[in-house]
Amino acid sequence: MAKSLPPNYAELCKLLYDAATLNAVGSLLNWDQETYMPPAGAGNRADQNAMIAEMIHAKRTSARVGELIASCEQDDEVTGDAVRAANVREMRRDFDMATKLPGDLVAELAKVGSQSQEAWKEARAKSDFAMFRPWLEKMMNLTRRKAECYGTPVGGELYDALLDEYEPGMRCAKVDAIFGPLRERLSGLIADVSRSKKKISTKCLTGKVDARVQNEFGHEVLRAIGFDLNAGRLDVTTHPFCSGFGPGDVRLTTRYRDEKFTDALYGTMHEAGHGMYEQGLAKEKFFGQPIADAISLGIHESQSRMWENFVGRSREFWVWALPRAKKAFGKTLAGVDVKTMYAAVNTAQPSFIRVEADESTYNLHIMLRYGLEREMIAGDLKIKDLPGEWNKRFEKSLGLKVPDDRRGCLQDVHWSFGLVGYFATYTLGNLYAAQFWEKINKDIKDLPSRIGKGDFAPLLAWLRKRIHQYGKRYRAGELCELVTGKPLSSDALLRHLEGKVRPIYEV
Amino acid sequence: MAKSLPPNYAELCKLLYDAATLNAVGSLLNWDQETYMPPAGAGNRADQNAMIAEMIHAKRTSARVGELIASCEQDDEVTGDAVRAANVREMRRDFDMATKLPGDLVAELAKVGSQSQEAWKEARAKSDFAMFRPWLEKMMNLTRRKAECYGTPVGGELYDALLDEYEPGMRCAKVDAIFGPLRERLSGLIADVSRSKKKISTKCLTGKVDARVQNEFGHEVLRAIGFDLNAGRLDVTTHPFCSGFGPGDVRLTTRYRDEKFTDALYGTMHEAGHGMYEQGLAKEKFFGQPIADAISLGIHESQSRMWENFVGRSREFWVWALPRAKKAFGKTLAGVDVKTMYAAVNTAQPSFIRVEADESTYNLHIMLRYGLEREMIAGDLKIKDLPGEWNKRFEKSLGLKVPDDRRGCLQDVHWSFGLVGYFATYTLGNLYAAQFWEKINKDIKDLPSRIGKGDFAPLLAWLRKRIHQYGKRYRAGELCELVTGKPLSSDALLRHLEGKVRPIYEV
Repeated sequence: MAKSLPPNYAELCKLLYDAATLNAVGSLLNWDQETYMPPAGAGNRADQNAMIAEMIHAKRTSARVGELIASCEQDDEVTGDAVRAANVREMRRDFDMATKLPGDLVAELAKVGSQSQEAWKEARAKSDFAMFRPWLEKMMNLTRRKAECYGTPVGGELYDALLDEYEPGMRCAKVDAIFGPLRERLSGLIADVSRSKKKISTKCLTGKVDARVQNEFGHEVLRAIGFDLNAGRLDVTTHPFCSGFGPGDVRLTTRYRDEKFTDALYGTMHEAGHGMYEQGLAKEKFFGQPIADAISLGIHESQSRMWENFVGRSREFWVWALPRAKKAFGKTLAGVDVKTMYAAVNTAQPSFIRVEADESTYNLHIMLRYGLEREMIAGDLKIKDLPGEWNKRFEKSLGLKVPDDRRGCLQDVHWSFGLVGYFATYTLGNLYAAQFWEKINKDIKDLPSRIGKGDFAPLLAWLRKRIHQYGKRYRAGELCELVTGKPLSSDALLRHLEGKVRPIYEV
Repeated sequence: MAKSLPPNYAELCKLLYDAATLNAVGSLLNWDQETYMPPAGAGNRADQNAMIAEMIHAKRTSARVGELIASCEQDDEVTGDAVRAANVREMRRDFDMATKLPGDLVAELAKVGSQSQEAWKEARAKSDFAMFRPWLEKMMNLTRRKAECYGTPVGGELYDALLDEYEPGMRCAKVDAIFGPLRERLSGLIADVSRSKKKISTKCLTGKVDARVQNEFGHEVLRAIGFDLNAGRLDVTTHPFCSGFGPGDVRLTTRYRDEKFTDALYGTMHEAGHGMYEQGLAKEKFFGQPIADAISLGIHESQSRMWENFVGRSREFWVWALPRAKKAFGKTLAGVDVKTMYAAVNTAQPSFIRVEADESTYNLHIMLRYGLEREMIAGDLKIKDLPGEWNKRFEKSLGLKVPDDRRGCLQDVHWSFGLVGYFATYTLGNLYAAQFWEKINKDIKDLPSRIGKGDFAPLLAWLRKRIHQYGKRYRAGELCELVTGKPLSSDALLRHLEGKVRPIYEV
């Protein structure tokens, strides 16, 4: 970029910096609500959330921002520069989407969402869907109103408007075309595994490890893979997440189970993948601008899945990590070798909880939610019928009877505060990750042996250079082709899963 | 109050509720900066603070708020009701003070204060005054500008404008009249103690106790004395504080030293005193209104000092607490009896750090700061001369040579973010506490024996009824006379300190 910015462009960037700064405040409120806020603070916190959400909305949709975008679109000094042009293209998209939502709807989504999330926590603890149902109805109605404000994309359905919010340009039709073969081949794989005589022991994962010890080990892994703890932190919540607040402040959360340390370990690596993406964005210079913002949730998820599954479940990772885990955990892992650990973390066995599901069955959990929420938005599925439908389809897809709603439709936080259109991006993330991973291994020939030595720096450097630094300069599909030379398909993910699971189960 | 509020009054209360809610957001930003924010987040956090501070200021000083206050002042339905009238009286004061400050000054105080606080942290750690000096100069200049905006009270000095902000109605002349005899008699007491042959052992306080164990014991004490952990919490910071965010959310902090558990214990009880005052205010119903807000810092401090010193350093408190501490700390307190513990926590020995000072010498620390900051504001003391003056006066007043600025003029956070006019309220708090305490013991005859049994409920109930529930309905001096029948003087505090210290030292 030239040294001095065109004044209209500079003013626009300043206004959006302010909006992003206020958004960082809103993120802190949410993070605090999940981590440290005392329960009795929930009432006023809901008002705080509503107030801040309304102010952010006002800043992003001000008439002045609209005027400046329009003037930048006509300004050769802006459109003639690839980075500025990309910025203005995405500012236009954000502005148009935001101005379609009335301020009172935004405030209501935030306020009711905050209360609904509190209700969900209690309902989940008690496995009591009836307690959550009125809140879910409110949130689905508000979300449908949001989709109607965005408008149904041409040739699509209402739900596409929600999908597009999280994965710009993505449509149900495209998703179905990729999910179709994925579902078919994965079902086949799971069926083959279920017929295998090979039994994989996961005993090595179930030794008791104190939460405090796990937390220290988690921090050791974070430091090794390159998450910057001077510009981020790790805390404990019911539902793990990553919150990128502002420049220099990216927060991860995880949860500890004494009797299965890999839950928290992979949760931590997963969120760290998100966190390192946030830390790799050019926020110090361009905070508030699309080029310092993540492309899409799918690409975000590709980063978390890569560290969790492609790195963390590899044989080479355990070559490095196992001696360290043994040292940290005392006797718990005595006698365990890399081969045993590698097999144990790569089982393909249906289970109830999405966030604890293995890498292969995980995508079946996602497709279930994707289908259900699409029907709830379309009005084809009534909220009262959700638990029944969930349980029926779960059994059909994964072969297990859901024992209670805590392990069924109450397990995820997303719907409680209106995250609809979001779940599909988890599997899109797996697909992007697999396609990137094949390319990375072509570019860094000795990657496996480097990982075995705990040298994760070349991988992080590749991601920084090929993905992170661009922010929203390209759309997700465009970046995928630019980096891998091919449009997104299910091929790489299926090669990855089948290439790992079939040898382990000898099927 | 009548069932339906006059509409202008109702609208005013709503606008101030919104301002208070935004203020709670600002408090969370500050709390987070002290507790959990990663260091690299400081830059954007400064912008967040500035932005929120400016918005709060705008809400509190809006033309509409001014119109509504003026109309309420003319409305018999408001002025005819004692509570509403008190509310409007204090709203007028707040509005007039706030409108005297230009928005850019408020924003600059918040932004520079945030950066300056970071600089102070580093300077303190390195005991490097030169590193902090430019920031202190900036903050003192900004604070002087603030005082000039408020204006020098008639017959007073510029510094009175700052004092009045924290202790409404208080003036240097009044302070001097109370501090004078206090200083004289305290100096006499300390001199007598220094000539005493009686040596008090504090060995029982210096056994090693792990921070985690101290933290658990601190929580046990909090629960016992009545701090509501469902509506509050306790964390760790460099400088302990209490932050009352909003209804149901009051946060305390403390710091742990392995080798002196009473530091954190009394720090926790002190902040809990503040916290229980905040929890006793009528915030659920009247948040944002003066009648749900603390009267003054002096009264606030009277609550913290009461729990820390009048309860926590009493013989009866240790009758209850010692067996519990022995159980929690293992062998550390083996063989220690109540008499030994009582004497050890009531020594009167000059030391360097204010927050670790004993109850008697503490007030000499305060008077030092009160004098220095008054002269810095008047321009009679140059910032560059602060360390030298501090050390000279400290030696004169407390008889010790200050070894480094970390233990001298860099020890307190206050000045780093512009808290000037504040220190005097600590000693005012001790004075109020002593005067209240004599009255409480007249009203609750068996209070000592109840404390010995761990029954703190009657004391908290008394405080709730006679002090907390009123909020700002009365001014501090008025409440003091209402509750104790006498204006504030140094008599009760001197009776308390001399009545305790002289027998211990046999002087």
